[in-house]
Order: sequence, then structure tokens, then C-alpha cells
Amino acid sequence: MVKVGIVGASGYTGAELVRLLSQHPQVQLVSATSETFAGKKLGDIYPGLGRAGDVTLAALAQTPLTFETVDVIFLALPHGESHAQAPGFLASGVKVIDLSGDFRFHDPKVYEQWYKQPHAAPMYADKAVYGLPELFREKIKGAKFVSNPGCFVTSAALGAYPLLAAKLVDSKGLIVDAKTGLTGSGRKPKPDNMFTAVSENVVPYKLAGVHQHTPEMEMALSRATGQDVVLTFSPQLVSARRGILSLIYGKLQRKISTAELTAHFAKTYQNEPFVRVNPVGAPWPDLASAVGSNDCVLAAAVDERTGTAVVVSVVDNLVKGASGQAIQNLNLISGLDETLGLPKAGFVL
Amino acid sequence: MVKVGIVGASGYTGAELVRLLSQHPQVQLVSATSETFAGKKLGDIYPGLGRAGDVTLAALAQTPLTFETVDVIFLALPHGESHAQAPGFLASGVKVIDLSGDFRFHDPKVYEQWYKQPHAAPMYADKAVYGLPELFREKIKGAKFVSNPGCFVTSAALGAYPLLAAKLVDSKGLIVDAKTGLTGSGRKPKPDNMFTAVSENVVPYKLAGVHQHTPEMEMALSRATGQDVVLTFSPQLVSARRGILSLIYGKLQRKISTAELTAHFAKTYQNEPFVRVNPVGAPWPDLASAVGSNDCVLAAAVDERTGTAVVVSVVDNLVKGASGQAIQNLNLISGLDETLGLPKAGFVL
Amino acid sequence: MVKVGIVGASGYTGAELVRLLSQHPQVQLVSATSETFAGKKLGDIYPGLGRAGDVTLAALAQTPLTFETVDVIFLALPHGESHAQAPGFLASGVKVIDLSGDFRFHDPKVYEQWYKQPHAAPMYADKAVYGLPELFREKIKGAKFVSNPGCFVTSAALGAYPLLAAKLVDSKGLIVDAKTGLTGSGRKPKPDNMFTAVSENVVPYKLAGVHQHTPEMEMALSRATGQDVVLTFSPQLVSARRGILSLIYGKLQRKISTAELTAHFAKTYQNEPFVRVNPVGAPWPDLASAVGSNDCVLAAAVDERTGTAVVVSVVDNLVKGASGQAIQNLNLISGLDETLGLPKAGFVL
Amino acid sequence: MVKVGIVGASGYTGAELVRLLSQHPQVQLVSATSETFAGKKLGDIYPGLGRAGDVTLAALAQTPLTFETVDVIFLALPHGESHAQAPGFLASGVKVIDLSGDFRFHDPKVYEQWYKQPHAAPMYADKAVYGLPELFREKIKGAKFVSNPGCFVTSAALGAYPLLAAKLVDSKGLIVDAKTGLTGSGRKPKPDNMFTAVSENVVPYKLAGVHQHTPEMEMALSRATGQDVVLTFSPQLVSARRGILSLIYGKLQRKISTAELTAHFAKTYQNEPFVRVNPVGAPWPDLASAVGSNDCVLAAAVDERTGTAVVVSVVDNLVKGASGQAIQNLNLISGLDETLGLPKAGFVL
Repeated sequence: MVKVGIVGASGYTGAELVRLLSQHPQVQLVSATSETFAGKKLGDIYPGLGRAGDVTLAALAQTPLTFETVDVIFLALPHGESHAQAPGFLASGVKVIDLSGDFRFHDPKVYEQWYKQPHAAPMYADKAVYGLPELFREKIKGAKFVSNPGCFVTSAALGAYPLLAAKLVDSKGLIVDAKTGLTGSGRKPKPDNMFTAVSENVVPYKLAGVHQHTPEMEMALSRATGQDVVLTFSPQLVSARRGILSLIYGKLQRKISTAELTAHFAKTYQNEPFVRVNPVGAPWPDLASAVGSNDCVLAAAVDERTGTAVVVSVVDNLVKGASGQAIQNLNLISGLDETLGLPKAGFVL
Repeated sequence: MVKVGIVGASGYTGAELVRLLSQHPQVQLVSATSETFAGKKLGDIYPGLGRAGDVTLAALAQTPLTFETVDVIFLALPHGESHAQAPGFLASGVKVIDLSGDFRFHDPKVYEQWYKQPHAAPMYADKAVYGLPELFREKIKGAKFVSNPGCFVTSAALGAYPLLAAKLVDSKGLIVDAKTGLTGSGRKPKPDNMFTAVSENVVPYKLAGVHQHTPEMEMALSRATGQDVVLTFSPQLVSARRGILSLIYGKLQRKISTAELTAHFAKTYQNEPFVRVNPVGAPWPDLASAVGSNDCVLAAAVDERTGTAVVVSVVDNLVKGASGQAIQNLNLISGLDETLGLPKAGFVL
Repeated sequence: MVKVGIVGASGYTGAELVRLLSQHPQVQLVSATSETFAGKKLGDIYPGLGRAGDVTLAALAQTPLTFETVDVIFLALPHGESHAQAPGFLASGVKVIDLSGDFRFHDPKVYEQWYKQPHAAPMYADKAVYGLPELFREKIKGAKFVSNPGCFVTSAALGAYPLLAAKLVDSKGLIVDAKTGLTGSGRKPKPDNMFTAVSENVVPYKLAGVHQHTPEMEMALSRATGQDVVLTFSPQLVSARRGILSLIYGKLQRKISTAELTAHFAKTYQNEPFVRVNPVGAPWPDLASAVGSNDCVLAAAVDERTGTAVVVSVVDNLVKGASGQAIQNLNLISGLDETLGLPKAGFVL
Repeated sequence: MVKVGIVGASGYTGAELVRLLSQHPQVQLVSATSETFAGKKLGDIYPGLGRAGDVTLAALAQTPLTFETVDVIFLALPHGESHAQAPGFLASGVKVIDLSGDFRFHDPKVYEQWYKQPHAAPMYADKAVYGLPELFREKIKGAKFVSNPGCFVTSAALGAYPLLAAKLVDSKGLIVDAKTGLTGSGRKPKPDNMFTAVSENVVPYKLAGVHQHTPEMEMALSRATGQDVVLTFSPQLVSARRGILSLIYGKLQRKISTAELTAHFAKTYQNEPFVRVNPVGAPWPDLASAVGSNDCVLAAAVDERTGTAVVVSVVDNLVKGASGQAIQNLNLISGLDETLGLPKAGFVL
């Protein structure tokens, strides 16, 4: 039984960790912290958690989280707050899986440029393994410190990787047009995430090279393929709570048919338990096809008229894009079956 | 390991059975039938099922479903089609859980009056136990034939039962104002269930004593309380896929405070694993609080100005209102822990 | 040409006034104030206003609003803020239409009890005419000070009035079960009005006699019918931006058929330009049937099994429930055709 | 007063024509036909039309539509059905505005290739003027036969035109990633347009060079700029009833800043009443910013890291993308002010 704690359990990714862990047969949730809601039950904030919400939140300072009480800590904190927490846990011998953006770049300057805040733990910037199992599994297995990927990045990297790995497309100038549900923007009320602002709407934001997931996509793909990847990323909010659907466009460098491209995708991921590649002729994956599960659903085609590869890549931002992938990483670093405790099915409807 | 089959697996309740059973440790899904989609995988129709969708559908006539292959059959058929199937399975020694409305009334005439079609198996009309465990658990335990309640009825009966059992309200003239998600109206495309007809809409239908769940509510409550219950039922479609939220109004027969009423509800359901009663002062249960789980979430209050008891009762129409309750009944008739395999948490977000 | 000003134009009802007035041939919008957005254009906040959004907002103190510049002022302020504004405008000879709840009760104590704040202009409490034209048209015509009704109240009062006026139902114990879109809860971000909290949800709140529109419904109906009306009101948020759909239940005092009841409703409102009564056999009015227009759409039926009258009453909370009705009142107090400038059609889709 | 008729008034674009024309001061709607709903009122099908729905539908064969009764006919028919209707009206001296795809290509073979059906009026294929006023206004003014553009095409062509006209981007390989509301897929119920299939979903379809609006975009842009335009078009359904938001990507051929690009867009459309170009620094246009109005809302930026021009272009598919643009064309061919009767404001909320 792996004993875990969650620091920052009252946010969406924290609540999703609790939801998923409630079905995990080999994990025991020892503690869950929240400064804002200390003393409350998580189920008071998320009534949908049902019996799994019977977890009393405590302030971090009042919570004994050491190597004696927990094996692994999930940091489900806002960006900028994990810097202060990860080093202490690591020093005390507790493994850390950080769901924030704080330790995704080896170079603290990249973090500071894109997140517009100082990196408060630069000595640890290159200590975390990047937790995208499909591209970096072997490194993750032995890790004590995992930096869990961004939600958009998971979708984009898994979708673009086969194109780049086989040098099918120009590595400079990929386009990632991604639509996300609202849980991606957190649970703090803002004019932008009100129902009236979002329902039946599509809201582009941070277009044309300013979203902080842009360099993370480039880093993940460059590191995995050895190429110098540069891309344009266009995030958009859609009228949904969960899910990210990315359309990825690449300029083809040589002729290839849709059938060949699809076969290449299928082969790339043939042993992956959490990646599904739709066959030629099937409907394109929609957002709903990944919601609630830890799956990334892919499909690819060639637009021969323009010489463009078109890829659809879908994940649930809270599961494969955050808490589910964190549990996948937990399984890997704990020597468990990688799929253990993760749902076979999504929400269906 | 209990071996089960699903007849009519391609509908919403069939797909939900497969989703839920994918987490059940003591059930083996042997066969799933569909006439329309025979030869396809269920996951082709419901991509969100993920790995749990790897179930090949077969025509019923091509499927060996006997006491040698299955212990229990779920009939997830449209109303009117279970009449033809249940008797054969029962005769062959297979237990049957019927999710349709076909065997809910002991008197076939009531069925015929409200469903506007002949009862094709009148000899079996009084053979099924009504599968609402919270009110009829002991009868269900020994049953070989269970008629699973209607979704609206589950919500209304669990909400109104404490009022009637303690004779707090007039049994003639309860009002049940219920809002349902669209999965309640099935997967056949109609003008009424198009996105354009429903999004951001509220659509009342079959008001003022014509919906077929009216007599089933009255039957369930009358049978459970020994009173002659008559009520007004107002179904309304809301812009949601899942869930039923009922507001129930009863004319109080004597003075009682909100605190006393809430305590009475809590006591009534104190040992029920799938009923939650919100304490006084908590927010009222919303639709989301039950979505994805097998829970019924309740709260009650007294409007002293008018002498009215007001109850909110929420269920997920596909889970506690259909497939989850069917699994709860499966557990009961199979001698398993009643909660086995049913999710502790709902969808949360 | 009637010259008008809007005080508090940046809220939802202010923006809706501007939208509607942009089609009014006899009204000139002279000034629009906002403290928060002074210096901005209204179209910067509401891009959907298009060319009609070309209205520069100014702080009230910088805006010359006197009888020389405007004939009528719309106060589109939060509750509690009109107290300070109305008296000055009235004293200076400007007519006032107040969209807040500040002047709806003749007795300031009722206001204070239900709004939980002091009434800051008690001398004016009984000076405003209650602006529900269908029930109080003649009084409105000569008024200089109109208190525009609450959105829920408009729906409930127009739906319940025919039942009470003909003494068909018990005036003690009406039930109003009302579902509202989110614009009803204002544009200030709160956990309760985030997209993630509301999408595909139904959220009951302030049930069982605590919502501040309860006494206003009772006041409007009591004043219009001479009876002592007491009712239970159950507001619920639904996954929609606009619209209120109320189901109203009354205990019938004598036998009446659905056809007779419908005929009575049709006759009651036969000369009303903004009330439509659906005939027997037509589908029940849905929320969408009133969205975007100034119409109240009604239908009625009798549940003979329980002796209950069931009425559906639908309005757009921003139009007939607020800004459209305010323009209807403007037309009345200005001697214009009551329907002038108000749209013949709603949004359709 | 221009007298008009609508053939095929029961579809979404027909209903939207009626909604918009109800505010037009110089148009008289003489007749509206429907084969399916002959004898009904349009308001019976679209209750939201309110008083504007008081239009009795008649079968075309029973409707006297000649040069003596009408000046202009709107054909609001499904693709393939205008072929049979347009020639007769034109021959009889009635002007025709066709909202279908039947007369958009001068070469009938292009139609047949992409619409997968024969062109039944090839003699008329090159007779219609393409009704996109911003690009072809002068030709439209004198026309008797206007082919109204496709909804996606309106959004894409207005967004891409400034890029191509100034030869800023490679004309081969533009990418148009477009999200549309569900009214774009018509009012015939299908599994794909059910609420359960679409709510909170994003559904890509006909990707990679197979959607029939692809050649129309290329035709419109090639004709307007004299270049040979080839592009990749990716349509996606989103959880909305109205609106199209396109992201358009072009490979820049020379250095240009976001400020310069925005200034170029603003200048291109400086005299256009229905095109708005957002200034640098404003939020990106969202879907809601065009819903309900005849506006096309644009913004542009440069991603300097990849040398890509990024354009957002939003229209309401039923207004600027169909019925509003048809009225704009009506005004042009009738010698009226081009903006007459079209709303200044959209729906706002």
C-alpha cells in the first residue's frame, strides 16, 4: 500500500486526485491539505465526491507529512507555490509529484520569462523528471521527483510526436489549435470564467506566442525527438467543463497517404495502455471521447491539396492532462502496474 | 464471480451498465446484445467507454444466454420489449433485472392505461419484485425477477417517503416538480432532443397528470407506507445530459420545524449507503451533487408561512435512476455486498 | 423624442436597456453612467452590442442629468443604491424608472426585513407606482416615479393572477417553482456563477420562504386581487443565460376543466400586446419561447386527479423581467404607444 | 416598400429571415412557403418568434409568387433544391437571392465534385453574382440574381482577404480552423445533432480537404485577389447554437508587426458598416461578440517566433453567415441603404 498526501487538495486537480484515488486498490490517502478550507471536508466543497469526499482538510503546518507518514506527495498548488514546498519534502526523503509548472524547465530563466515571476528554487530546476510516460517512461521509473506535464502540453506532445519523430513535417512552424474546458482555468471566480461569459461561447486568448505552455510543448518535443521544435499555439476556451481537443497542423516534408500516416501513429503507440489511435474511416475523435478517462485519443490525416498533416489529439485536462497522469506517474515510481486504479472507461455521457 | 448478460446494450442504460460493471470486481460480462449494432463494438458507438468499450455486440438470436452461461440478465430494452424476453429467461433459470417499465405494476391494466400499449406478458405482471432497495430491500434479496424503478420515481419516492411514512403531509396532493437531463429521453433523434431545441432551455412536458411515471410513484409510495397516495407530477427537460432534481411539496398536517424534519430524514436513511441527507444550513443539493454516483442526495425544510414541506431529491438518472440501481439489485440478489463495484465518487466536475 | 439617461449602465440590465433602445424610434439616449467603467465605451464591456455599444460611460458626478437634459432616468443600480439617487432626480423634475428592489414596498419595514439592509429613503417608499402594466396600467400612465417589478415576480404574478382574480384557487399556499438563467444573478464573479458551477446543473437556493421576491409576489397579487395572498417560492438556477420559467400550482376551490381554465386565461389577457396564452393542445411553453422578447408566455391546465391548477409562465428576465418592461413603462409614462421600440420577435434560436 | 417572398421558410435561415425582416422598415413579407408545414403558422414551429411568427406557411404550388406580387424571392432551401426554383423566378422577372450552395460556382463540375450531386441548372451556374458585399459590392448592386455565400466562407474570406490582398502570406497553404454552432447543421434530427452528442463537446468533422466550403473559400479569395488560393479547412461543431469563430493561419512572406498588421486590417475595412477590427491590446473577439448581429468581428496578430499571421474572424452563421447577409444583399439590389433594417446590436447576453 502506497501512502500519499495531497498538498493543495481543494483545487480542481486536488479534487480529481481524490476522485481517482478512491478507486485505486494500492494507494492510501493519508492527508490532504488546504489553507483556505482547513477544517472542512473536501465533500463540503465538492458534493459530487460522495463518500470519497469524506476527507478532512488541514492546514499544511498542522499536517505531519514526512517519510514516516507518506511515501509520495502530490503538490496540487498554483504555479509559483511548489517552489517553496518541493525541496523540503525531497530532502526529508518523500517522493514528490508536482502538478504545477514550477519544475518543468531545466533552465529557470525560461520559467521566469514565460510565467512572469521569479523561480524561487533554481537549484531544483533540473532535478525533476518530466512526467510524460509515453515519451519518457524509463526516466520516470526511477525518479524521486516528477514534474507532471501541463494539460495542453500532454495533448499537443502526444499528437505531434509521431510527426516529428519520423521527420514527416517541418519542425519549425507546427500549429496547435487547442480548445479547452473551463476547469483548466481554475476555481477562482473571474469575469472570464463566469457562466454568462462562457456558455455557448468560444473564447480565444493568449494567441500568437504568449501562452506559457508554448515553450513547454517545444521543450517536450525537442527533448523527445532531438529536433529544434518551434510552434504556434492557440488556446481557446469552449463551453465545456472538461477536456482538451487539439488540432495540430504540420507542413509535410514528403508524400505520405492518410493510411500510411495512420499506420505510423498506430505503430508508435501500439503498446501504450492510455493512447488510442482511431482507424481510417472512423469518426474523428471528439472532446467527449476522452472525458473522464486517462486516455489520449488520436487520429491523423493528410490534406493532399495543401500538403498538410492534420492530427486530432484529445485528453481530459483533469485526468490525462493532470491528476490521472500524476497517478500513472505514481504507479511508475512506486513499481506498480502503470494502469492500476485508473478507470477503464470515461464518463460516456 | 457472477456472470451477466445485457440484452439491449446499445442504449444509454446499456452503455452505463458497461461503464459501471468495468469497475465491478465480482461480475463478469459474458454477452451484450444489440439488434441494430450487431457486429460492432460498443466502444464504436460510445468512444468515451475507452477500454471498457471492447465488447462486441451480437444479435440476441445469435447469443447463447442460458443458465449455463449467465446467472443474471439485464434487460435494457425500450418499454414494451421486455414483455417478450423476461419470461423465457426466467423459465430457463436465469435471474432477470428488467430496466424497462414493463413489469412495474401488478395490474396489467395500469400499464396499458399509462403506457398506451398492450401488456404482452400479463401472467408475469405480478411476478417481479420492485427494485427500490431503500424501501423494499428484504423482498429483493430473495428475488429471481426484479423490476428496476423508473428514474423519476427513484428520485420522487426516496424524497417523499419520509414525509408520508411519518404521516407529516397530506397523502393526496403531493407535488413533484422534476427536472431531468436529456439521457432520460433516449438515444433516438427527435426534434425535441436536438441540441438546438434544448441548449439553455427548460422544456415542460406531459404536465398535469399524464406522464407514465405518475402512477408508479403513487404505487411505490402507497405500497411502502400503506397510504393512498395521489400526486401531481411535472417533468421538465433541462440543459444537461444527466441527473434528475425533484422539488417535492407537501401540505403539512402538523407543526414541525426544519431542524426536526431534517433529523427525521437523516434518521430514516441513517443506514443507507446510497442516500445522503444534507444537514440544516448546508447549501441545497444541486443536480451535480449526484451525477456519476449511485447516490440520492436529499434535503428538507419547512416553509412556515404556508405550512409546506419542501424536499429536494437528486439522483443521476442513469446510475441510481437506472443502471447503478440495477447493479445494487444485482448485488442484493447475488448475495454480494450491496455497494460492491459501485463508485464512491461521482464526476465532481 | 424622449430623452433618457441610464444610471448604472454597465450591469446586465443597463446593457440590455441599451440593446433595446437602439431600436426605439422615439427615444434618445443622452447619457449612461458607470463608476467602475467611467471613460470606457459600453461596447468594450459588451462586444456583442456592436454599433449600439458606441456609448461612452461617465461617472455620475461628471454627468449633467437634469430636467434640461433628460426627461426620464432609468436607475439600473444594485439594490440599496437607488435610495440615494431617486429622490434627487424626482425633486429636479426628472421622471424616474427604478429597476432595483428599493421602492417596491410601500412599507419600508418589509424592505428591511427581506433585503436585510436599511431603507435609506423611507419618505419615498410609497411614492412609486408599481410598474407591472398588465395589472396596474392606469396608475402607471400618469406616474412620474415607477418601480419596475422583479423578474421572478413578473413571471409569477402574470401566471397566478387569473387563478386568483377568479377565485379559482386557495390564495394561501400557492407554489411557485421557478427556474432562472444566470443573468438574474448579476455580473459580479462568485463561486456560484462560475461556468463550472452551473453548466448542466440545476441549483436550488433560498427555498422555503426566504427569497426577497416572495413578499413582492404576495404584494403584487394581493394588491391586484384584493385577497390576502401567501405563497411558497422556490428559485433555481439553470444552465442558461436568460429566461425564467415558473410552474405555478394552486389548490382548486371548484371544478374546472383545462379548456375552461385556458379560455379564462386567454380572456384575461386578450388585449395585452405582450402576453401570449398557448391554446389547449399546443406544446407547453418552454424557456426559449420568451427569450429575447418582451413577451410573457402562458399556458394552464388542470390535474383532475389531485384538483390542482398547473400554470406555466415564461419571461425573459432581462426583457419583460427588467429592461423591456422598463421601456414599456417608459412608453406609458411618456404617452407613447406601449409597444413602441420593443421587438416583435425574440431570439428564435 | 420592397415586397419579398421566402421559399422554404421553415428552416433555420427562413425563420431568421422572418425575425430580421420584422424590424425592416422598407420590406413587406408577402408570402412564406413550406411543404412540410403548409397551413401552420411559422410561430407554431418557432415560438420565440413572438408576434413576428404570425405568418401562415403555404405550399409553394398554392402561392402566387410572380413579378406582380413580389420584387425579390429568398430561396432558403436545402442544397440541390434551388436549382429547380431559381430559373423560373428569374424568367418571370423576379429577383432571386439564393441562400443555398447551388449557384456559388461558375463551373457546375466543381459543384458536382464537392456536393456529390448533379447540377440541375447548369445554364444558370455562372449567372449569379456572389453576394459577399465587402469583396464584390459593385457587382451586387446591379444584380438580379445573387448567390448568398456559405456561413463558413463568409467568416474565412473576410478574415483572410487582407492577408492575401497585400500578398503578406503564402496563398498556398492557409489554414482555417473554424468552430460552428449547431444551427449550421440544420433542423433535421440526426444522431450528430442531439443534445447528448453535442453538449460540452467539440466535434471535428470533414477534416483534411473534404468539406464543400473549401473550394468556395478558395474561389471567393482567388476571385477577389487574383491569386491562386489553396487552403486547409477544419470545421468543428461546438456546444453553441449560433456563431462561427475561425482561426486563420498564414505563413508570412515578409516581416510585419502586429501593430502594422492590425492597421492594415483596419484600413481595409474602414468604410465597412458590418466589419469591426479590434485594436491591438483589446481582448480577442469571442464567438458571442457577433451573435445576433450582422457583424464580422476581426483581430489579427503576428507570431514572430514562427513567422505566422494569426487572424480571428467571427460571424453569426445565421445572420452575417446567411439571412442577415441576404438582407444586406436585398438592400443593395433594391437601392436601399445597405444597413437598413439590420440590427445595430447583437444579443449581448
